[in-house]
Amino acid sequence: MALIVQKFGGTSMGSTERIQQVAKRVAKWARAGHQMVVVPSAMSGETNRLLGLAKELAPAKQSAEYLRELDMIASTGEQVSVGLLAIALQAEGVPAVSYAGWQVPVRTSATYTKARIDSIDDQKVRGDLNAGKVVIITGFQGVDETGNITTLGRGGSDTSAVAVAAALKADEAMIFTDVDGVYTTDPRVVPEARRLASISFEEMLEMASLGSKVLQIRSVEFAGKYQVPMRVLSSFTPWDIDITEEAQSGTLITFEEDEQMEKAVVSGIAFSRDEAKIAILGVPDKPGIAFQILGTVADANIEVDVIIQNIGKDGHTDFSFTVNRNDYARTVDLLKEKVLPGLGVADIVGDTKICKVSIVGIGMRSHVGVASKMFRVLSEEGINIQMISTSEIKTSVVIDEKYMELAVRALHRAFDLDEPKSV
Amino acid sequence: MALIVQKFGGTSMGSTERIQQVAKRVAKWARAGHQMVVVPSAMSGETNRLLGLAKELAPAKQSAEYLRELDMIASTGEQVSVGLLAIALQAEGVPAVSYAGWQVPVRTSATYTKARIDSIDDQKVRGDLNAGKVVIITGFQGVDETGNITTLGRGGSDTSAVAVAAALKADEAMIFTDVDGVYTTDPRVVPEARRLASISFEEMLEMASLGSKVLQIRSVEFAGKYQVPMRVLSSFTPWDIDITEEAQSGTLITFEEDEQMEKAVVSGIAFSRDEAKIAILGVPDKPGIAFQILGTVADANIEVDVIIQNIGKDGHTDFSFTVNRNDYARTVDLLKEKVLPGLGVADIVGDTKICKVSIVGIGMRSHVGVASKMFRVLSEEGINIQMISTSEIKTSVVIDEKYMELAVRALHRAFDLDEPKSV
Repeated sequence: MALIVQKFGGTSMGSTERIQQVAKRVAKWARAGHQMVVVPSAMSGETNRLLGLAKELAPAKQSAEYLRELDMIASTGEQVSVGLLAIALQAEGVPAVSYAGWQVPVRTSATYTKARIDSIDDQKVRGDLNAGKVVIITGFQGVDETGNITTLGRGGSDTSAVAVAAALKADEAMIFTDVDGVYTTDPRVVPEARRLASISFEEMLEMASLGSKVLQIRSVEFAGKYQVPMRVLSSFTPWDIDITEEAQSGTLITFEEDEQMEKAVVSGIAFSRDEAKIAILGVPDKPGIAFQILGTVADANIEVDVIIQNIGKDGHTDFSFTVNRNDYARTVDLLKEKVLPGLGVADIVGDTKICKVSIVGIGMRSHVGVASKMFRVLSEEGINIQMISTSEIKTSVVIDEKYMELAVRALHRAFDLDEPKSV
Repeated sequence: MALIVQKFGGTSMGSTERIQQVAKRVAKWARAGHQMVVVPSAMSGETNRLLGLAKELAPAKQSAEYLRELDMIASTGEQVSVGLLAIALQAEGVPAVSYAGWQVPVRTSATYTKARIDSIDDQKVRGDLNAGKVVIITGFQGVDETGNITTLGRGGSDTSAVAVAAALKADEAMIFTDVDGVYTTDPRVVPEARRLASISFEEMLEMASLGSKVLQIRSVEFAGKYQVPMRVLSSFTPWDIDITEEAQSGTLITFEEDEQMEKAVVSGIAFSRDEAKIAILGVPDKPGIAFQILGTVADANIEVDVIIQNIGKDGHTDFSFTVNRNDYARTVDLLKEKVLPGLGVADIVGDTKICKVSIVGIGMRSHVGVASKMFRVLSEEGINIQMISTSEIKTSVVIDEKYMELAVRALHRAFDLDEPKSV
């Protein structure tokens, strides 16, 4: 008998018919003798409908008081979901009880619309589990220390599920999604992409942050911090799929670097077309320059990704970085107005037609030559590398966006990620 | 400066446009220097939509566990309303904060879907009022002592508003509805019906329970118990109506029997077509008979209204009572099956084509001859009285339903309730 947390997204909860399917799936696990906790999202479209109503009335100034009311409103979507799922389980003959975040309670910071979970009390939930009930807890929300409802921001239900699993020391958090696992890369770009049976949470973090939008990144951080085994699996399989088969399906996000995992030097290829490059040329090469440039950008709440400072010559250097493509024009204006005059340089060049391609693999820690193999593969395809950024378990390059698919396919093949062709 | 509680129904909260109108009305009162607490219902249609979803999934057996989940779901309608109204007030430049019942908290019994309010903590609300905020509290709901969400049943928002007013010792609870006050009788039956400037809460109780569906009866009981001045007024007046005029509009439900009120012996004529009459003939006239008959009916959760036991002769009597018309067939079957055999009688007669007409007036306490005047008026119209029931402040008769309008009009005129004709 295991203690399992299952999370279902808005699509899975999209209608009473679909909620009945979720209930049957959960009931199957409960009847097999497992202690079950379920964290559903709001019915698809509901959060947008609610926030849409709020925005029609919104004041000019977005104060904390206003954001508090947004959370008051948005949190009701999940509250309806948990109640409906509890009823559907009861109709299946399975005892079930639902809780809103504040009832557990799920304690969070007081930062409305993007709160962080501080702690989860497991007492009430354990009591119900021991009484043989399925416990259903609202995703996406909690309560701050003065009793205000908070929400965790979009996609927060993944984080809720993992946090609940951590608090209960669950055997596994199963995240049901509309994909059947984590792939070596996007199958729409590389048809030979393979589903990974397992991936380390650090690799998953890099894959998620690099644009594999399977899981909310904060949930993976949580899983890593509290060592919660987490499985991504498909909600589109029939509910009555054999339970042993279902338990092995999808992709398990693990914490142990087992032998099998070490064999694969590179686990996946991530890519993103969301960035733009900005280069400031002929910057005086002296201490404080990076801060002078990036501090101003950060103050404007613009997130910077890859940063490159070339080795200077003649007391000058080139300073390049990437920002989200949506922030590109604003960043250039900001630099021209506030930074360039102070530096005594005027030359700034930008490029929005770039992409970032990354190889990710925990095996890179113990294998040399992985990055240089990447560069060789790209060079053989005639692809020019504009920027390089490395970390312990990934190497990213910025290249012309027109080569993105070509680069991803070549790297996928070169690092032996292609699905073996059936004969 | 007064402390005022205003309650707005689902129609008033039916769209973001209408919510803006409510916000402007509340803002007008707040700007005039009053401390304002607002209790809105769910947006019209929302509670039905939510309960409809739940019913699609409902288990066969309606357990307490199921009803708990219904309350979890239904309570979200008001939570959305309070958040939206708070935002609309903030957009008007008026500081506002919303609370769900559990946040106040509004403590109730644990009887899901028809909980009763036990107590309301005024600390948080007073703090906000003193800080110059409008406080918006969900109607219809509360929290039981173990932290489960409860609802008060349909129309419970009226009760919430009065209970909040009682807890805060508010100067007045203003209940905004789709009528402009309490009338001497239904204007659809008697076009000459007049709006009452004031009515005692006891009269209001009789009017409400007798079918004047202006206010939820429990809210009037609450107002009576805690002596909360309560005003029924129209939500259809323009929001910018002069505040002094608005404060005098509608009907005030009072507790003091002032001189003006004593003058009117009868305040209104109530009537109901919802009942059916059942008579058991030739019942042995001995102790315990009433209990033997009505105990069985009560055990089946059937509510009995007017009860008449005639003076017996030859050791036998006739026993008659009325039930809701919807319960008629079920009651007759029950009596035939379970009661008549034990009594040794077989004769039961029923009539669904009846109605009940009542005269209501606190002045009846101190005036004799009011009931006999009623009987004389009906007799002059040739209307046969089938049953009579009296209390301190009302006299009800059961008559053939075809005479209902005739009886109501004749009584309305005879007791000087008609609007004076303009010349």
